[in-house]
Amino acid sequence: MNRNIEASTALMTDMYEYTMLDAALKDGTADRRCVFEVYTRHLPEGRRYGVVAGTGRILDAIRDFHPTQDELRFLSDNHIVSGRTIDWLEDFRFTGDIRGYREGELFFPDSPILQVEGGFGECTLLETIILSILNYDSAVASAASRMVSAAKGRPCMDMGARRASEGAAVAAARAAVVGGFQGTSNLLAARLYGIKAIGTAAHSFTLLHDSEREAFVAQIDALGRNTTLLTDTYSVEDAVKTAVEVAGPDLGGVRIDSGDLGSLAQRVRNQLDALGATKATITVTNDLDEYAIASLQTAPVDSYGVGTMLVTGSGAPTCAMVYKLTEREGASGRMEPVAKKSVGKANLPGRKLAYRSYEYNLAEAEHVVAGDEEALASFRPDEGWRDLLVDYMVHGQADTSYQGRDALPRANEHRARSLSEMPISALSLMKGEPVIPTLTEVI
Amino acid sequence: MNRNIEASTALMTDMYEYTMLDAALKDGTADRRCVFEVYTRHLPEGRRYGVVAGTGRILDAIRDFHPTQDELRFLSDNHIVSGRTIDWLEDFRFTGDIRGYREGELFFPDSPILQVEGGFGECTLLETIILSILNYDSAVASAASRMVSAAKGRPCMDMGARRASEGAAVAAARAAVVGGFQGTSNLLAARLYGIKAIGTAAHSFTLLHDSEREAFVAQIDALGRNTTLLTDTYSVEDAVKTAVEVAGPDLGGVRIDSGDLGSLAQRVRNQLDALGATKATITVTNDLDEYAIASLQTAPVDSYGVGTMLVTGSGAPTCAMVYKLTEREGASGRMEPVAKKSVGKANLPGRKLAYRSYEYNLAEAEHVVAGDEEALASFRPDEGWRDLLVDYMVHGQADTSYQGRDALPRANEHRARSLSEMPISALSLMKGEPVIPTLTEVI
Repeated sequence: MNRNIEASTALMTDMYEYTMLDAALKDGTADRRCVFEVYTRHLPEGRRYGVVAGTGRILDAIRDFHPTQDELRFLSDNHIVSGRTIDWLEDFRFTGDIRGYREGELFFPDSPILQVEGGFGECTLLETIILSILNYDSAVASAASRMVSAAKGRPCMDMGARRASEGAAVAAARAAVVGGFQGTSNLLAARLYGIKAIGTAAHSFTLLHDSEREAFVAQIDALGRNTTLLTDTYSVEDAVKTAVEVAGPDLGGVRIDSGDLGSLAQRVRNQLDALGATKATITVTNDLDEYAIASLQTAPVDSYGVGTMLVTGSGAPTCAMVYKLTEREGASGRMEPVAKKSVGKANLPGRKLAYRSYEYNLAEAEHVVAGDEEALASFRPDEGWRDLLVDYMVHGQADTSYQGRDALPRANEHRARSLSEMPISALSLMKGEPVIPTLTEVI
Repeated sequence: MNRNIEASTALMTDMYEYTMLDAALKDGTADRRCVFEVYTRHLPEGRRYGVVAGTGRILDAIRDFHPTQDELRFLSDNHIVSGRTIDWLEDFRFTGDIRGYREGELFFPDSPILQVEGGFGECTLLETIILSILNYDSAVASAASRMVSAAKGRPCMDMGARRASEGAAVAAARAAVVGGFQGTSNLLAARLYGIKAIGTAAHSFTLLHDSEREAFVAQIDALGRNTTLLTDTYSVEDAVKTAVEVAGPDLGGVRIDSGDLGSLAQRVRNQLDALGATKATITVTNDLDEYAIASLQTAPVDSYGVGTMLVTGSGAPTCAMVYKLTEREGASGRMEPVAKKSVGKANLPGRKLAYRSYEYNLAEAEHVVAGDEEALASFRPDEGWRDLLVDYMVHGQADTSYQGRDALPRANEHRARSLSEMPISALSLMKGEPVIPTLTEVI
């Protein structure tokens, strides 16, 4: 993207959000109070749970959602909205409330992941950008969490930038951390979110040099003995021998990027140990996914570098989250639950509460309670039910503790804790049903 | 993303590009002349061809690849590179050559899609951003092209913004045009690339109102009778009746977003015609892909709105393109072909020429000719072979005719022409081999 397009996030949206605003301003319905809900009707096939990610970025995006003069001119010149709407947009700021699942929280079908409450106009403008962020970031975090579980404590690192659109790569690195990853190759993500930047070297660096030895010497001269050398450009065995000759027994580590990774890791480990480099680590890469990682559990691997399958959600590159109007002020001025009746796509009317219940310290069910504001105000959950909703924004003011760098490790901790409370089949890579049922109740 | 991160594209890259630069500057190899090649070892399973997209955006990204002072400080403070490298980066500008397949060109396994020639340092810095753009944009354009073929002349529109990361959504809208799409819901893409902005209304707009009729009246008041009304919030039949009552026979069109789209389109067409709205169009949406579009060929549908499956590449959300060093200056100062020997991932050494040969006006084969600069200079293709390589940049100067808004319709025209030259099985949605073989020759 070029440098002048990020003045605001206000055009990162579908045209119809603006034309609906325009029509609603004209007929006087734009200020009707509304509750929109983000949820998904289903998890990707066979998945046991999903991981919410992106809410911190949504708070950033809403902060930056102010059309610039250039953007307003675009809307006006292209007759997308009328002059009245341009006036309304002049000093646009979202003034409503947002509550939802914490970043890192697990979600299931029909979990009310985010609820956006405010005037119709301000809520509808945010639809596309909220869904863009939640759908992609949660897809990556959900895949990452499965990989991290399969890695059983060995660190997983994001190396997927080259297999995702350049902006998505940054979002993916961040979402991977929510899913439990410990570093990223992507420098912009490292800079923006304080994620540990990691990297080794490419085959091109070895090929650039007249010999593999010269390449290794150059890398160690620049980065120190503790660096990780790439060993599969020519012969892995020769490379490992050269690596230890050049770096000595303090060699940091080696990376293997091709072949039968399990057998190779075993041979390389034995070779490194025989050469005295007992502390040198082994990183493996090469189209890893959660299944490949699980299959390497018995191999002497120290860390996993994951690319394509991380940034493409391991077969599920987007979630199926939607943004639906569930309650709105009617002509009478009273709030009324609403729902569309489209075949196969009907939604549960009314605002929602959400709780997780437990039995013997294990999660038992997701409880979604729907109703109007009054009914929900008097609802009392059973003892021990965990309230899943937090306030992200109140009257347009963001709770900044959910935003920025510090929110990221907390999101991962929350994910790890939520996952540890799940029945053990949550960790199964076999296809199956969501690990707990979602029970809905209309009051 | 927030507003201060797009100062340059220089950190949209993997850390190791910078650490390799650092090491190469230290040992004196950073200025060795290199030829890097972008290619893919295979198409997504069963695909007959791929479509190159993103090269225009690559020219933008290279233009904007100048580390800012803040970015240099980040690299320095985090000890990613040494002071010498910071100096080298101070006024970095790519000064090399880039040649490759035109945007919109079809590609096959081992097609030399892009070749980047220059000093090792400057070429290696661009690896990640070039791959990010080409891998995603080409994935979307490749899927789009199949959908457009399946639509047999009916317009396809991008409505996928909400199912892609917010920056990727913009790239997807653009790539979709390369693949033959005719409009996008995404306003930022419309603004940046001059793509036609399109849209109807969401179910929420109907639900906002006290009745469907009031919603339709409001939309027509604001947008005119020529607008497209969404008809599946409650009963499609009732909605179509109301739509024509409100708009009269000049109603622009209706959209159907759920249910059995073929049967519904047929019933709605008959109903519209009976009500005199014979020119009202029918747009269908709802998780369409090329197979769904093909299955609707006999239904009276006027246009297709495609979301998820477009922006996720219809099952192939990234291409498997890699960026490999194929030739470089050695210690002698002479250019030498190089290749890694990694198991299953070896590449063909040397720079490449690429041609397409024809028989009876149909493409017959992709010819990739590899060798050193001298050998290739004297290579003469057979008569009728089409040269597939164009010069994107010469000595750091971009050919701006491949960049910006005007390049986009030309890329689609080139795609359509290239596809029309292919054997008809290119249009088959059945899984199969690439429609023409890639023949490689080392000279």
